[in-house]
Amino acid sequence: MSEIHYRRIGRLREIMSEKGWDAVVFSGSDPHGSEYPASRWKQVEWLSGFTGEAGQLVVTLDQAGLWTDSRYFIQAAEELSDSGVSLHKTRVPGAVDIPEWLARHAGTVVLDGTVFTLSEVRKIEAAISGPVSDVPDLINMIWYDRPALPCSPVITLDDETTGESRFQKIQWLRKVLIRESCDAILLTALDEIAWMLNVRGRDIEYNPLVLSYLLVTMDDVFWYARKADSDSDPDTADSFAEVTADGVTICGYEDLEADLPGIVAGLASGQDAPPRIFVDDTTLNFNVFKSVSESFGDENVIVRPSPVILRKAVKNSVEIQGIREAFLVDGIAVEKFLFWLDAALASGTAVTEHEASCRLTSFRSEIPGYRGDSFRNISAYGTNAALPHYSTPEQGSAVIERRGLYLVDSGGQYIFGTTDITRTVPVGECSALEREDYTLVLKGMIALAMAVFPKGTPGCRLDALARMPLWKSRRNFGHGTGHGIGFYLCVHEGPQDIRQNLSSQALLPGMVTSDEPGIYREGMHGVRHENILLCADDMTNSFGEWLRFETLTLCHIDTGPVVRGLMTPEELEWLNAYNRRVCETLSPFLEPEVVLWLQEKTRPL
Amino acid sequence: MSEIHYRRIGRLREIMSEKGWDAVVFSGSDPHGSEYPASRWKQVEWLSGFTGEAGQLVVTLDQAGLWTDSRYFIQAAEELSDSGVSLHKTRVPGAVDIPEWLARHAGTVVLDGTVFTLSEVRKIEAAISGPVSDVPDLINMIWYDRPALPCSPVITLDDETTGESRFQKIQWLRKVLIRESCDAILLTALDEIAWMLNVRGRDIEYNPLVLSYLLVTMDDVFWYARKADSDSDPDTADSFAEVTADGVTICGYEDLEADLPGIVAGLASGQDAPPRIFVDDTTLNFNVFKSVSESFGDENVIVRPSPVILRKAVKNSVEIQGIREAFLVDGIAVEKFLFWLDAALASGTAVTEHEASCRLTSFRSEIPGYRGDSFRNISAYGTNAALPHYSTPEQGSAVIERRGLYLVDSGGQYIFGTTDITRTVPVGECSALEREDYTLVLKGMIALAMAVFPKGTPGCRLDALARMPLWKSRRNFGHGTGHGIGFYLCVHEGPQDIRQNLSSQALLPGMVTSDEPGIYREGMHGVRHENILLCADDMTNSFGEWLRFETLTLCHIDTGPVVRGLMTPEELEWLNAYNRRVCETLSPFLEPEVVLWLQEKTRPL
Repeated sequence: MSEIHYRRIGRLREIMSEKGWDAVVFSGSDPHGSEYPASRWKQVEWLSGFTGEAGQLVVTLDQAGLWTDSRYFIQAAEELSDSGVSLHKTRVPGAVDIPEWLARHAGTVVLDGTVFTLSEVRKIEAAISGPVSDVPDLINMIWYDRPALPCSPVITLDDETTGESRFQKIQWLRKVLIRESCDAILLTALDEIAWMLNVRGRDIEYNPLVLSYLLVTMDDVFWYARKADSDSDPDTADSFAEVTADGVTICGYEDLEADLPGIVAGLASGQDAPPRIFVDDTTLNFNVFKSVSESFGDENVIVRPSPVILRKAVKNSVEIQGIREAFLVDGIAVEKFLFWLDAALASGTAVTEHEASCRLTSFRSEIPGYRGDSFRNISAYGTNAALPHYSTPEQGSAVIERRGLYLVDSGGQYIFGTTDITRTVPVGECSALEREDYTLVLKGMIALAMAVFPKGTPGCRLDALARMPLWKSRRNFGHGTGHGIGFYLCVHEGPQDIRQNLSSQALLPGMVTSDEPGIYREGMHGVRHENILLCADDMTNSFGEWLRFETLTLCHIDTGPVVRGLMTPEELEWLNAYNRRVCETLSPFLEPEVVLWLQEKTRPL
Repeated sequence: MSEIHYRRIGRLREIMSEKGWDAVVFSGSDPHGSEYPASRWKQVEWLSGFTGEAGQLVVTLDQAGLWTDSRYFIQAAEELSDSGVSLHKTRVPGAVDIPEWLARHAGTVVLDGTVFTLSEVRKIEAAISGPVSDVPDLINMIWYDRPALPCSPVITLDDETTGESRFQKIQWLRKVLIRESCDAILLTALDEIAWMLNVRGRDIEYNPLVLSYLLVTMDDVFWYARKADSDSDPDTADSFAEVTADGVTICGYEDLEADLPGIVAGLASGQDAPPRIFVDDTTLNFNVFKSVSESFGDENVIVRPSPVILRKAVKNSVEIQGIREAFLVDGIAVEKFLFWLDAALASGTAVTEHEASCRLTSFRSEIPGYRGDSFRNISAYGTNAALPHYSTPEQGSAVIERRGLYLVDSGGQYIFGTTDITRTVPVGECSALEREDYTLVLKGMIALAMAVFPKGTPGCRLDALARMPLWKSRRNFGHGTGHGIGFYLCVHEGPQDIRQNLSSQALLPGMVTSDEPGIYREGMHGVRHENILLCADDMTNSFGEWLRFETLTLCHIDTGPVVRGLMTPEELEWLNAYNRRVCETLSPFLEPEVVLWLQEKTRPL
């Protein structure tokens, strides 16, 4: 593999020499700051062979480096071996990030401004004390068969599903504009746009998004989407008609920049002050920013975190109802899968990680309302589970043997909600260390699930709860404990999280966040337990207002590897009550033989 | 009482009318940003009657308001009743802080720039969009019998006590200057100066400090202290001679501002660039800042957190040895006191809170090396303990009855360390709620004490550990869980803390921090348990470097009110082991009857 990438980087360097470029920076993102881009924007993978979901590449005439975080250290080291691309670890003590590295190693820095956010470019410019050269779509010079813009059917969600119409959401957004003294807002994050308009697409694998921009003024709503799609797809035509009927003007995706001067002129007429536009520099790409800035004037571009992020994260009661349903049907699918796996292994059938993954997706796909997986299944046996973000190969994946632990992290996209669940299950005898790690991680997951906390508490203040059982045994994990989850949207969303990094965003009632501690031992095994928590109102007393978590996930936790002596009575009680609830809730939906198996699996410890 | 303060504020308003001032802001601090000022600077107390240790007062022609935090809400409400001064709560949701309030209510804002830090003035100026009027010592216009500048004997600490000579400390500071490209640093915080020079005074009650400034350049050290003192006091004369012999030039406290132009000229000669000076705006007063800025030029004043703060917080091995000794002798004194209290109450003697407090100080004062208390004893019985910072009155304090809980928070200044300890003890039968609160707070204190955590963890990530047992019962406390403690210095010091507010300062081996959760029920009772923790290296393994806490405090925890059923086996084990260690360590130093009593008190639960 590395030969191809070596040649590709070589071709790039020829162009760099010709043009006099010292360094080119490549992003793993798209023009909307998406965490997971469509294949057209997988430039880093195409150039370097690194398939991880977070990485940036810097190429100079004599060096090439990939920057990624601890989730991908092992994978990157493997995928980049002999490629001539060196691995730079981010978020570790003493890490030298790209801007700093460029300042030391490069003169002229070139990048494709369509795939870097304004804030990323500003950081590089500050470090190198000068401007970068912005060459839109520069990869086209060497990537001749680059995939086209994605173009999938667009559907709408009705108010009975979303709990709030696009009209209401736009009214709310206009109130924000008044409060912020702005005349327009440009939404650039694809999940924010999908949420605003109650539309969903499939432009990005696992992410039900529509590639588009949304510009909202006090009088108009301009949706810059792939206008031509409505001709080819009846769903899209219906969706576009519905959205248009609600007062949204549909424009061509690539026309935004050309339209901006006209929009500014329209806004300016009849008011004294020049119009001001609200943008969020964490998802606005540098290229569009330049156009916005030119049209509105630098001083009239108000750069702040988008108000949609927080509003979207706090689910309304209709969304919560849908999410509960999603976790119910998802739990049924996962239980069916675990039963199937148990039976297959017991019967001596050889099952590979990939076969297991396919079977799991197949169980999910039987569910009415299923629209795909919410991310690529992580189906990892034994030592492979030691890679927190193991990518199960389609060919030649490991056979699940009858000893140790099997880890499966997966989720579904349903029209009424998004799920995410990790179960680590014993597939045979486990070592003492496997059992201990399994138990300590479980204690951590339970500690967070049981937390009660005062209103205003940010997730970072709770993170240590999930880690302390591990820390006391001098064990830890390198990823966050919890991420927000969308409503039939991205499986990762902000603004809240539960992790080591300090962030002041309070957990609010209605937020849905994962609880997924782990332990990873390279060359040995990996354990992760993940339930999803709904933040809910608890009570108010003289000490203040209290919040708690409600566990949404419905899938039993295998008690086989649990070391009883390491559990407190309170933890055992939680575990037994949880398994009992799972069994009682799911049994009516399962075949008798699965029910019997589940009853056995959920026998109290 | 309030009549006097009413008149004082009236006199102030007459002057304000004359001068055309809309608002005057008064600070409770001194020219060095001290948490506890000498009596000369207790302007807020003199004007308003509020005796709390943190408060700022704003007086306009028709309004007066005191701003303070939750520690003092109850006390302030009492002390300000009928004074015409309204209470403004800080650090509560929706709080309107002074700058914001001034912006809404006042035109010209006047303050005494010698008692406001640069950063405080900058916040006010930003809010009111204009400059404040700085009238140094404006309180002199109405406070005729204002106390003079404090003037106490100065002593030096030898290297066997401090572990690092002033020469070594100055050498280190000069390396920082080189790293920061500065030519001089002005230290303004009194504890930083005392630490740098290994000197101690008694200029502020409970704080062994010398009122002074310290200006360090690459060639000189100028100590602006009360030069005249050396004539009147032999200790001070010796100390000044010793310091002078080490190359420190002693200058007059009030000469700093006049000297600055000459110092700048000296630094400028023989170098091309204008000299740069390092200052910390959290303790530099606005008045001195203006002089510094005038002399060096605005652009050459580098405003950053003082490097001394962190260095001072990380105790060296000699300091740690001294601190251990301090907690040993302090524990002996507190045990003697608790024994005396038990016996006095048992014999039917009426003991008031104030008598108990005096007795405790008297036990401490018998210890060789004792230099005073580290803060004013909080000796609080019953409902009084519900005020976290109760100020025990000298006259008419409550009699300790033979039921419920008595709380005593106190500490000593020893030449080899500073202590701080809170014990809540049953003085008779306790209610179920008292016992429950007592136990939950204890569980919180133990949870933090037992924490193990990776290198780099800031205190705010551990705060919830001490609160979770309380939170699960929907109880909480409004103060921080832990503060840093100096080495024969201030009982509160930074930069680390363990509290709700997010702060990225990691806990480092050698830091000494309190662990003091509590529960306060107005009109009922208060519970606080406080031990002091030393952050220590634990081990390194494949998961990283680990730190843990070592409990320094040596004084038994009364098991009488503990509700056994609320404690986990791990917590009981900790409690029994701790009490056993206290008994074994202290017994050799106690009278036989006290030993018998302590053995009984520390019987395992």
